[in-house]
Amino acid sequence: MKEISKLMEYRAGVRVVDATMRDGGLVNDFYFSDDFVKALYHTNIRAGVDYMEFGYKASKEMFDVNKFGKWKFSNDDDIRAIVGDNDTDLKIAVMADVGRCDYKKDIINRADSPIDLIRVATYLNSIPGAVDMIEDAANKGYEVSCNIMAISNAQEGDLRAALDILGQAPVDVFYIVDSFGAMYPEQVARLADVYMNMAAKYNKKVGIHAHNNQQLAFANTIEAVGDGVDWLDATYASMGRGAGNCAMELLLGFLKNPKYNVYPAIQFIEEHIGKLKKDGVVWGYDLQYLMTGLLNQHPRSAIQFTKEKRTDYAEFYREVVAQD
Amino acid sequence: MKEISKLMEYRAGVRVVDATMRDGGLVNDFYFSDDFVKALYHTNIRAGVDYMEFGYKASKEMFDVNKFGKWKFSNDDDIRAIVGDNDTDLKIAVMADVGRCDYKKDIINRADSPIDLIRVATYLNSIPGAVDMIEDAANKGYEVSCNIMAISNAQEGDLRAALDILGQAPVDVFYIVDSFGAMYPEQVARLADVYMNMAAKYNKKVGIHAHNNQQLAFANTIEAVGDGVDWLDATYASMGRGAGNCAMELLLGFLKNPKYNVYPAIQFIEEHIGKLKKDGVVWGYDLQYLMTGLLNQHPRSAIQFTKEKRTDYAEFYREVVAQD
Repeated sequence: MKEISKLMEYRAGVRVVDATMRDGGLVNDFYFSDDFVKALYHTNIRAGVDYMEFGYKASKEMFDVNKFGKWKFSNDDDIRAIVGDNDTDLKIAVMADVGRCDYKKDIINRADSPIDLIRVATYLNSIPGAVDMIEDAANKGYEVSCNIMAISNAQEGDLRAALDILGQAPVDVFYIVDSFGAMYPEQVARLADVYMNMAAKYNKKVGIHAHNNQQLAFANTIEAVGDGVDWLDATYASMGRGAGNCAMELLLGFLKNPKYNVYPAIQFIEEHIGKLKKDGVVWGYDLQYLMTGLLNQHPRSAIQFTKEKRTDYAEFYREVVAQD
Repeated sequence: MKEISKLMEYRAGVRVVDATMRDGGLVNDFYFSDDFVKALYHTNIRAGVDYMEFGYKASKEMFDVNKFGKWKFSNDDDIRAIVGDNDTDLKIAVMADVGRCDYKKDIINRADSPIDLIRVATYLNSIPGAVDMIEDAANKGYEVSCNIMAISNAQEGDLRAALDILGQAPVDVFYIVDSFGAMYPEQVARLADVYMNMAAKYNKKVGIHAHNNQQLAFANTIEAVGDGVDWLDATYASMGRGAGNCAMELLLGFLKNPKYNVYPAIQFIEEHIGKLKKDGVVWGYDLQYLMTGLLNQHPRSAIQFTKEKRTDYAEFYREVVAQD
């Protein structure tokens, strides 16, 4: 049991990161209206959110700009059209995937950009690529975080080795990422221990990005914050790939720092999320995601099941068990 | 952090209680078809569930039998029509509310009944009434549990006093009940500590019945089982009042005892729960339940909001904050 003070107190170092457009963009191919994005930006400011992630800096050589909304590419000019000079306490982030981003060209100097934070996303097998991107971003003046994805089926030895390499790079935050929604709070506690020890060695912060396959995205996030993890990803109404993410409205309700306010989140969801759902954008907990989470599998088969509007859950279970 | 063995091991003492018809009955006035009930019964047997709660033993003097389905009253004959002699490992339970049950008349001797377990439900202010019902049920040969409801706004001193009285009564299990869906896992851990200490003193078991207002019903249940709580309530697809309960399919997926199987649960949900939802029965996590949970309020205003099909969440938030 954690110390009795944990729930009443707050850590000033906690940072809330809104990943709605980036992880949510994965379920609508990044086609957000400017109205939506502006409302989200102003909601984040009012709610006391610390960072707003606009989308990916995806390579225009690898991805056709005509087949995705603009937030797949998050041009600085498009961000600037929303935030102007962003004379607020809300910082701006984008994600850059190893191997899918022309970072040397597409990420300019921070002094000339509305962006504050580059979130490098990598798998365990591409850490040197991540380090190169981290160094590039740090040299250009950005804050830098690094998400190591899909760690729920990684070997702890590999993870420690990766953190040891990243620890020597100019990255500010290591992220625990439960890409498959496979982890239970006890496992989060153990991983947080691994990350926190390595973060202490290299003077880094630790973050968490959870998925809701087993209705544990919020529970895993508050487990992590109780374990000393400071950077917390969330999305409004859990909007995100597959079963979605930790719900911003749950997280803002939980956090005790008076700078955070849940009411703007409720207003935003009422005014903007219902419309997305009516327009046919689909995400959120359902049995198919529970199954891939339980089996610690990538959610791609569950996403396909959802796209095909299948409801033969028992047959799907037989399929994913057979793949296991 | 809990010990490393907790997730891989299992405790043979764990008991899973299916409360679908009882808590779920609160959202469809207990109008379950016989087909549904028979399928649920056979699903529970195949899934390895330990107890199936059929409904309430509600007073026919207080409640009009024409205004509710038969499982509000759970006549022994109606149960027998489903289970016959119930020559299985699945035990049968019903709930009896203090002040709303003619237990002396309506609960007959266990030797003549298909029922195995009487679940007495009480508030903190009616413990002597609960003790009378517990003694009556124990004298008639039943296993007996006691749910102390709405403890999230109780004083710990009152709770200890209640458990001390109940400890001296012939009840087998004390239940932690988060009626308002207001508790976080850390709070569950602390309450489990209070209950477990009192249970050790009096040689009782401890159970948990969670609600999903903050998407924590499953997380709170697995927190509790990690803390030594043995009796776990769940419902298929979380069917239950308001935001619903701990999902049976999540719980069965989590538990490591090989007697439990998640596949029959998936089949049952596919075949029977979708139909209920199509017929207009409504339950499950939504913003209005998050709000009453967050404010530690009874969900009645959120249930009314749901019934009226309102979607003005921000106005509702202002209303419940004003009531706080």
